[in-house]
Amino acid sequence: MTLSRDQIVSALTQILGAESVVGEPGQMTGYISEPRKRFHKEAQAVALPRTVAELQAVMEWAHEVGVHVVPQAGNTGLVGGQVPLFGDEVIVSISRLKGVRSVDAAAGHMTLDAGTTLQEAHEIAEDAGMMFPLYIASQGSARIGGVLGSNAGGVQVLSYGNARELCLGVEAVLADGSIYKGLNALKKDNMGYDIKNLLIGSEGTLGIITAATLKLFPKPDFYETALLNVASPEAALELFTQLRARAGSTLTAFELMPRIGIDLQLKHGMAAQDPSAADSDWYVLAEISVPKGMGGGALEAALEDAMGAGIVTNGVIAGSLAQRETFWTLREQMSEVQSREGASIKHDVSVPVAAVPQLITLGIAAAEAVQPGIRAVAFGHLGDGNIHFNFSQPEGADGKAFMEGAEAVHEAVYAVVLELGGSVSAEHGIGQLKTKLLKQVKDPVALSMMKSIKSALDPKGILNPGKVLG
Amino acid sequence: MTLSRDQIVSALTQILGAESVVGEPGQMTGYISEPRKRFHKEAQAVALPRTVAELQAVMEWAHEVGVHVVPQAGNTGLVGGQVPLFGDEVIVSISRLKGVRSVDAAAGHMTLDAGTTLQEAHEIAEDAGMMFPLYIASQGSARIGGVLGSNAGGVQVLSYGNARELCLGVEAVLADGSIYKGLNALKKDNMGYDIKNLLIGSEGTLGIITAATLKLFPKPDFYETALLNVASPEAALELFTQLRARAGSTLTAFELMPRIGIDLQLKHGMAAQDPSAADSDWYVLAEISVPKGMGGGALEAALEDAMGAGIVTNGVIAGSLAQRETFWTLREQMSEVQSREGASIKHDVSVPVAAVPQLITLGIAAAEAVQPGIRAVAFGHLGDGNIHFNFSQPEGADGKAFMEGAEAVHEAVYAVVLELGGSVSAEHGIGQLKTKLLKQVKDPVALSMMKSIKSALDPKGILNPGKVLG
Repeated sequence: MTLSRDQIVSALTQILGAESVVGEPGQMTGYISEPRKRFHKEAQAVALPRTVAELQAVMEWAHEVGVHVVPQAGNTGLVGGQVPLFGDEVIVSISRLKGVRSVDAAAGHMTLDAGTTLQEAHEIAEDAGMMFPLYIASQGSARIGGVLGSNAGGVQVLSYGNARELCLGVEAVLADGSIYKGLNALKKDNMGYDIKNLLIGSEGTLGIITAATLKLFPKPDFYETALLNVASPEAALELFTQLRARAGSTLTAFELMPRIGIDLQLKHGMAAQDPSAADSDWYVLAEISVPKGMGGGALEAALEDAMGAGIVTNGVIAGSLAQRETFWTLREQMSEVQSREGASIKHDVSVPVAAVPQLITLGIAAAEAVQPGIRAVAFGHLGDGNIHFNFSQPEGADGKAFMEGAEAVHEAVYAVVLELGGSVSAEHGIGQLKTKLLKQVKDPVALSMMKSIKSALDPKGILNPGKVLG
Repeated sequence: MTLSRDQIVSALTQILGAESVVGEPGQMTGYISEPRKRFHKEAQAVALPRTVAELQAVMEWAHEVGVHVVPQAGNTGLVGGQVPLFGDEVIVSISRLKGVRSVDAAAGHMTLDAGTTLQEAHEIAEDAGMMFPLYIASQGSARIGGVLGSNAGGVQVLSYGNARELCLGVEAVLADGSIYKGLNALKKDNMGYDIKNLLIGSEGTLGIITAATLKLFPKPDFYETALLNVASPEAALELFTQLRARAGSTLTAFELMPRIGIDLQLKHGMAAQDPSAADSDWYVLAEISVPKGMGGGALEAALEDAMGAGIVTNGVIAGSLAQRETFWTLREQMSEVQSREGASIKHDVSVPVAAVPQLITLGIAAAEAVQPGIRAVAFGHLGDGNIHFNFSQPEGADGKAFMEGAEAVHEAVYAVVLELGGSVSAEHGIGQLKTKLLKQVKDPVALSMMKSIKSALDPKGILNPGKVLG
């Protein structure tokens, strides 16, 4: 049975009330267009449940009548997982599921409704004198449900882990409307299969996360932050190994940046002045978070050694919070500045940490071979082996023509990544953008297990059809 | 088709050769008896493959003919997951899958065959100048495959996480003999569902882990270790909160111990002298692992504050490695000393960290109500909310009669644990010991998801029948 839009809107209105249903195509723009504007399908309706019970009722109805559902949180995903693929779907937004269920600073966790934004989660943690250390560019809009659904990463994964590792338990509504009650605050629980981690990162294809218990951490006493000149990614890797040996898990960030990214920021007026006294092909932004009871100075001592050994050629330790902010802004603008410089081709990839220099050398060579003049802007989380391997168009080139060669650049870069044992989706997931790619590169046994699990938990294929598994 | 023992042994011999098959019941003792001697079923045979290919061939055969398989690693499990339940099973031991596939100290990971013991894994890490921070009492015998299959915990989970969090990727042979190739050294990989974590902790019911990539950590420069007198579990919790705020993730252990556990060790000659100058009902063993670049003194400073505030009434900071060893031996002997004191009833439970004092107060009261005179020896990982909630028989009582009341004590303690939002299997898993309990206490939706997943990945029910799901 295929329902018409009118029938769908009418049924949803009966369940949720008219103020919680968007049925007019013209009013859905905010829900069906996504950050990169690559995906353009309509939705039949948008449902905006205010409670888990309402969401459950929507899913029971959808399962009963066979209507496909696209779960949506902050609509900040970069691979189209949160927008329709076929046009017959209903978007179920969790944006109204907002609130704090509990905060226990002493025990180190908080339980939030999944519609809470990441920014709000930071503030709730802050108000409790603690920290929730997951920082991504879209944190003002991204919501906890989406952050977990896509297993978001960010700049402090090095020490604290990604979204998966920051989550103790989840509650989720499944395809048939049943509720998985996995909220708990337990650090150890070996009562059966790990359902929590199966739901996290499943991009809304196995369930809709409605609430989560998240870890809270003590705030560091202060930061030691440095912007360091290094000759090459090899030198950066050597520096990483030395810093990690000295600082252990207090080394909370280790970001690699290329000179071109700073030059472009200066060119486009996004940086006021060159942050570095001496020129360098590569820079590292390193940060140690010093716990309250420990003394400072570890970064300075390590850098003296590294400069003595010629690994670091120059560097600045931030002398103030303002200077720290300047360093971080340089890093955070690396992606944005590329759009000001014209067209760009991006890759969200990871390799084993030790293979990052090879990735950069071989990846740039491979891209230049298929697009001469292409300008690599490779930057990111060296400490996690996760590089945003981006390329800007040749200076003055035609952006459209450049983008027509994107597929060839992708193929060239991904071949290098796979050769090095890496991942073609380190942070952003599969969504609808990479389903074909997944089939090509994933272990076939793993793919087959994924399909079996999807069929077992959503036999009617209600949740986010066509995403992840295609 | 049901095969006779002779047919099974003959088929296995054809696949593996005679030297890799144990077919005589009298020679299987080491494989069918387990540490607590609670489970007593025979096996049809024991298969000892030397390679993953041999293991794969065994599973292809077993799947084809419908023979049930019990995967076994170090045979140290405490819930009977690694020994037969029905008597018609073949034990497939991974003990011969031993070896180092790769070690990369700089990048912080090593890949080991699953038959490698935990002790050997420690030594391999040590030889590379690094550390693999998973420590359990049975580490001399426990093997990586079992450690992961049961998601083992131990004394440093507080800072480094349990086995699941220490593992980057696994390789596993599935029920039908296909090989899941999930070995990777990636810190970030969002290419599809989290199969790794589904296999970890599935106790051999979804696949047999044959190799794993494990995280390596820099060794601390030195330890600050203290044995501290506290008046109550409440005071211990307060101390934990303060220490964690000061030391962050460098606080690597926080263990609670009751006076009776020390008294018993003195009584049975397991401790040479009272480690504490002043008597106390409770003790905390706290340890900070100081990274190379950081100064010491955090523990002392924190303790001065805690003593000033009356939270700690007395204490000793270890002045030497030998003294540190003495403190840790006291903690490690807490379980063993109970068997010297007669019969004991044990519970492997966890609650949210903040609820540990309530767990202890209410749990002891509940047990005393059903068994007057029972002596609580509650100790363990307070920082993880994980207490080994054990009870010794009343002094001079009849051990057998005491154990006949074990079920009533279990029920009383578990009721308290569940009331506090806890787990009735924090570390040891479900195996065959707790399958009935699991059905009673687990969220029914979670149970139903587990069953669907089991049917999807092992439709013929070949792997470890009757375990976990019953």
